Amino acid sequence: MDKEVFLTAAKKFGTPLYLYDLKEIEKRFEMVENTLLGVNHKVFFAFKANSNPYLVDFLRALGLGADVVSLNEYKLALSVGFRTSEIVVNGNGKTTDELKTYAESKVGCINVDSLEEIRRFPNLSARIAIRINPNVDAKTHPHISTGLKKNKFGVDIQTASRMIRNLPSNLKLVGLHCHIGSQITNISPFMDAFRSLKDFIEEENLNLEFINIGGGWGIDYEHNGKGLNVRNYREKVVPMLRNFGVPVHLELGRFIIGPAGYLVTQVKEVKTTALKNFVVVDASMSDLIRPSLYNAYHHIKFLSNDSQIVADVVGRLCESGDILAKDRKISKPKTGDLGVVYDVGAYGYTMSSNYNLSLRPPEVAFDGEKLKLIRRRETLEDVVRLCKYPEN
Amino acid sequence: MDKEVFLTAAKKFGTPLYLYDLKEIEKRFEMVENTLLGVNHKVFFAFKANSNPYLVDFLRALGLGADVVSLNEYKLALSVGFRTSEIVVNGNGKTTDELKTYAESKVGCINVDSLEEIRRFPNLSARIAIRINPNVDAKTHPHISTGLKKNKFGVDIQTASRMIRNLPSNLKLVGLHCHIGSQITNISPFMDAFRSLKDFIEEENLNLEFINIGGGWGIDYEHNGKGLNVRNYREKVVPMLRNFGVPVHLELGRFIIGPAGYLVTQVKEVKTTALKNFVVVDASMSDLIRPSLYNAYHHIKFLSNDSQIVADVVGRLCESGDILAKDRKISKPKTGDLGVVYDVGAYGYTMSSNYNLSLRPPEVAFDGEKLKLIRRRETLEDVVRLCKYPEN
Repeated sequence: MDKEVFLTAAKKFGTPLYLYDLKEIEKRFEMVENTLLGVNHKVFFAFKANSNPYLVDFLRALGLGADVVSLNEYKLALSVGFRTSEIVVNGNGKTTDELKTYAESKVGCINVDSLEEIRRFPNLSARIAIRINPNVDAKTHPHISTGLKKNKFGVDIQTASRMIRNLPSNLKLVGLHCHIGSQITNISPFMDAFRSLKDFIEEENLNLEFINIGGGWGIDYEHNGKGLNVRNYREKVVPMLRNFGVPVHLELGRFIIGPAGYLVTQVKEVKTTALKNFVVVDASMSDLIRPSLYNAYHHIKFLSNDSQIVADVVGRLCESGDILAKDRKISKPKTGDLGVVYDVGAYGYTMSSNYNLSLRPPEVAFDGEKLKLIRRRETLEDVVRLCKYPEN
Repeated sequence: MDKEVFLTAAKKFGTPLYLYDLKEIEKRFEMVENTLLGVNHKVFFAFKANSNPYLVDFLRALGLGADVVSLNEYKLALSVGFRTSEIVVNGNGKTTDELKTYAESKVGCINVDSLEEIRRFPNLSARIAIRINPNVDAKTHPHISTGLKKNKFGVDIQTASRMIRNLPSNLKLVGLHCHIGSQITNISPFMDAFRSLKDFIEEENLNLEFINIGGGWGIDYEHNGKGLNVRNYREKVVPMLRNFGVPVHLELGRFIIGPAGYLVTQVKEVKTTALKNFVVVDASMSDLIRPSLYNAYHHIKFLSNDSQIVADVVGRLCESGDILAKDRKISKPKTGDLGVVYDVGAYGYTMSSNYNLSLRPPEVAFDGEKLKLIRRRETLEDVVRLCKYPEN
């Protein structure tokens, strides 16, 4: 993204601000499509990564389906025009009421998370996949590793087998689902998982419409070339996918939209203490919690021309955990300079809060020419209006 | 809190729901007042712990001042009736515009966080305190420890001394401020900090209106009697406070409101896998992020009468980090049973988010007789309305 775009956006919409590069989203999706060339497949966009209505509609128009994890995400998907057949429902602890809504509207597939969930199904016909937990270590942050026995998601092979044998007649098993975690940069966990999935299908002699291999494609947060190597994936994993003999569904969020999102922020203070430099910016953990929550690394660049310093980049919240970057080598900024936090398109705005009564930033899309406001900045009135409720 | 109150509240307002016991808030404040008996003092309530307008107004009526950390918290304090003289402003990276607002409205005190902040003051008279960082280890979670040199808050003794000598004539030094962290259960860090504060005042021969000793009083999250021992505090710390010879200001949030808040939640599934039991509830890390963010312990009780099991209590978000309790011994619940998460009055709702398009729960106050809705449940419409912005 050109420096001028950041400057113009900041001037027009103020800071902090989320900026999305639509052209980059297109390019990322193309990269996925090229990697999977020759595999009959469909990509579903993981709404939990980013559920801005304008952006998910943009992704719909590009040809992606919707991967939703809550009834609200489902409603949002329908409201922007996804057909029910293009939606796959994930998540644990789905209620009977929710399952009823999905089944009645003939959703494309419900990924069933547990034996108990099968029992909660209403007596309605539905297309389901069973989420298999292959007990594979995704070698990622424990919070976003999901394919280990100790994680809450999915069922083990033995339970899946029992579920299939005892499937009520109203439920049609159309696929198997397997998602082992998020931000995976090494292909071997994928290979392990898909191998056991393939073995299971053969042992059970299943006739499926598709295999849903989830997502988890890692991105290059550190800007050192260590994201998921798609050439490697194409060489080693894609043949396994072809070998399934049925279409493959993928659920991708971060890989497509992560690198297309930028958090533009303004320097409010450069503070030097005996021990450390602090660059205080107007974005904080309320806007982007990943560094605090996962100790996540985000590349940060200041649009400043001074000498390099090593500093903590911190927000203005009253908490030491409010850190965007620790001991980072940066161009020394002045108060008023702009900084850009990279790769925040996924799990950025969706996890934002009003901590310290911070107001959530606006979201702006850039189509290569024009900037478009796609969510306005929150006001204090927006936050307190839920409290202005008639006497009760 | 009586079991019946939880049941009634859940029935009337649905789950998940934040419930606050007003009588307990009164009791907690009384406990603080009794501990400080004989010390000329004033307690300021830390809005960042809980900024529900009804609750902060209730605290105002009890006689507390307001400790705010952002311009929005300041505006909220004024809107519920705090006089500016009862408000103290904290936080790092305050801007000139913000400082101007505070100074013009003659706020009680601005706690200045850095040398750089002094330089950003507009040419207006203002009452300030300097936040001293005494480099004391508060022995609490690194995210909420604030009194170490490596933390972003305050200035060291040498810098403070320089600031005092060079204070612009429009700024009146009325106090010193020192807050070493949050959730402190051991009195020795307090004693260390106050000792160095006292030494500093004597060395500098300062004539102050008050000393602001911050907060940090820890609560008994584990329900094993290990919160801050107020008898100990009274015996060992209070004499030091008296010895300051000037009034003492305190900033307390968690200690007053933490144990008065309950998160009432319903069981959506009890899932047994080969390795673990999972109790899936309808509250999640979007409602209460402390367990995920700080690995914080919250006592949880299910209103169920079955045998004891060991289980992870998890939410329904599509993320393994969505855990409320790990390997916890609980009464085995059934789907539909209620559970109560304790001690969520502070840093509960204020840190909530819409992750997975979760809607934020309602807040309800209980005055010993009646339940009163003090923030309604969020709707999907509330969340997406910021996106329905006229073309631009």
